[in-house]
Amino acid sequence: MRFEVTILGNSSATPVYDRNPTAQLLNHNEKFFLIDCGEGTQHRLLRYGIKYQRIDYIFISHLHGDHYYGLIGLLSSMSLNGRVKPIFIYAPAALESILAIQIEAGGTPFKYPIEFFAIPQNVSSVIFENESIVVETIVLQHRVPCTGFLFKEKSKSRKVLKDKVTSLAIPTAYISLLKRGIDYRDASGQVYAAYDLTSEPDAPRVYAYCSDTVCSESYLSQIEGVDLLYHEATFMHDMVERASLTFHTTAQQAGEIARKAKVKKLLIGHFSARYKDLTPLHLEAKCVFENTELAQEGMTFSI
Amino acid sequence: MRFEVTILGNSSATPVYDRNPTAQLLNHNEKFFLIDCGEGTQHRLLRYGIKYQRIDYIFISHLHGDHYYGLIGLLSSMSLNGRVKPIFIYAPAALESILAIQIEAGGTPFKYPIEFFAIPQNVSSVIFENESIVVETIVLQHRVPCTGFLFKEKSKSRKVLKDKVTSLAIPTAYISLLKRGIDYRDASGQVYAAYDLTSEPDAPRVYAYCSDTVCSESYLSQIEGVDLLYHEATFMHDMVERASLTFHTTAQQAGEIARKAKVKKLLIGHFSARYKDLTPLHLEAKCVFENTELAQEGMTFSI
Repeated sequence: MRFEVTILGNSSATPVYDRNPTAQLLNHNEKFFLIDCGEGTQHRLLRYGIKYQRIDYIFISHLHGDHYYGLIGLLSSMSLNGRVKPIFIYAPAALESILAIQIEAGGTPFKYPIEFFAIPQNVSSVIFENESIVVETIVLQHRVPCTGFLFKEKSKSRKVLKDKVTSLAIPTAYISLLKRGIDYRDASGQVYAAYDLTSEPDAPRVYAYCSDTVCSESYLSQIEGVDLLYHEATFMHDMVERASLTFHTTAQQAGEIARKAKVKKLLIGHFSARYKDLTPLHLEAKCVFENTELAQEGMTFSI
Repeated sequence: MRFEVTILGNSSATPVYDRNPTAQLLNHNEKFFLIDCGEGTQHRLLRYGIKYQRIDYIFISHLHGDHYYGLIGLLSSMSLNGRVKPIFIYAPAALESILAIQIEAGGTPFKYPIEFFAIPQNVSSVIFENESIVVETIVLQHRVPCTGFLFKEKSKSRKVLKDKVTSLAIPTAYISLLKRGIDYRDASGQVYAAYDLTSEPDAPRVYAYCSDTVCSESYLSQIEGVDLLYHEATFMHDMVERASLTFHTTAQQAGEIARKAKVKKLLIGHFSARYKDLTPLHLEAKCVFENTELAQEGMTFSI
């Protein structure tokens, strides 16, 4: 089951050096989730040949422009290009009227419904759930209310051992029961233990998205052990005072968070315009947490 | 005196084929005027190495997103990059609250003042004037209230014939009087006619910006004889019904408008996403009005 994230923007505050403000596309089992939507996100989707009509769920972390100014344009293009199926937006409450006032000014209602859900602030909560994934907010500490997002796969069913099942000629109808751990009893009354005919399921995977925030241990327990942690790393650590002042994190701090939370892999992004070359940020984080990657635009990371 | 326009976007409705929605930068005597501001305009300014802090005046024709969704991002970047001098925005009235609601949501007021002027709709009016140029609106016919803009140089002073003035040793203090057509009288009472010591001034130049509109003769008299007419040409003429229905113009119609108005040069833009190759649009307009150019992004046209 595919679970991967594609980076559409990695710049903080403003676009610069052909780097765009924050946006990421998460693909979980061919369901597409957009996380944040800085100006020019639709341009990036075009550049990378991603069909934006496949996106059904949009999550906005907070209302600084570099995380949402591209949303109205993307939504408008979806309508102009014939979308009729609804889109689901999870965002701070104020975004609803920001979108509405612009749609109204355009004089033409969108051709599809927007289902808007205001994210509760200051408390972590489950805001989305489907058959295979749950999305939970992470309360971050920024200059305006801001939440990260935890995309958690649900527990999966056990994996059938095909050779055994075939040799025993177990009817197809019973396979789903075996996957759920229910034993099979044949016509003669002979019982075959589900645990002998199946193996342990894959562990549910988790993706944590943390942007923007001052470095804090307040959300450490929530991101503990995640498969992939995206964490903002706006500055190098020589700028730690400025990072604190502006409620951002340094590359070194992002590494420390990853190490303390014992995550499997760290992805850093949201880079300040002062860094044309991102290598030093990468090296700084790697010094603390070796398995760190740069959120380079256009790259896709498996979770 | 420099008078030129640089194309920052030529796409209608949505970005496509690395073409951006509408935006143009007008430079008159090193005063910079931005006309419309589709999403990604600040990216284009960066791409072409144009310092956006030099822009002091912004004109928005109407509130369809492809003409203004990039404005909030550009204004925000101006603030983040330290702007303190005011910016002057001329736009439909509703834009003021669209900007205000987004600035408020960001939690940090901009560091510079926005001076907002609501453009009167349905009637042409002078909305801007400085020492050398006047901006007048053109009432267009679109699905929402929409105005084009006429940038008219003011009458210029006569040009001094340097050789004659030097040989007569006319004091510098009198030069500006000669330019205004006032004769010079020397100490002996001898009169030298200003018209003998100066030549005719350069004709004031005019740039007309007409986007978006259905083809109409209603604004013909206003654009008569202009040096450069930018006119939208969203469709080829085989789509003339769709053009009428959506209140747009075809390339052929843009050529006809240019011919009827006896303009010196026509620039067409605002191309539909259905045209990857723009050559046919260019040829169609040229069949009617030979001196036509395509508004290609990054190109600068002298006026």
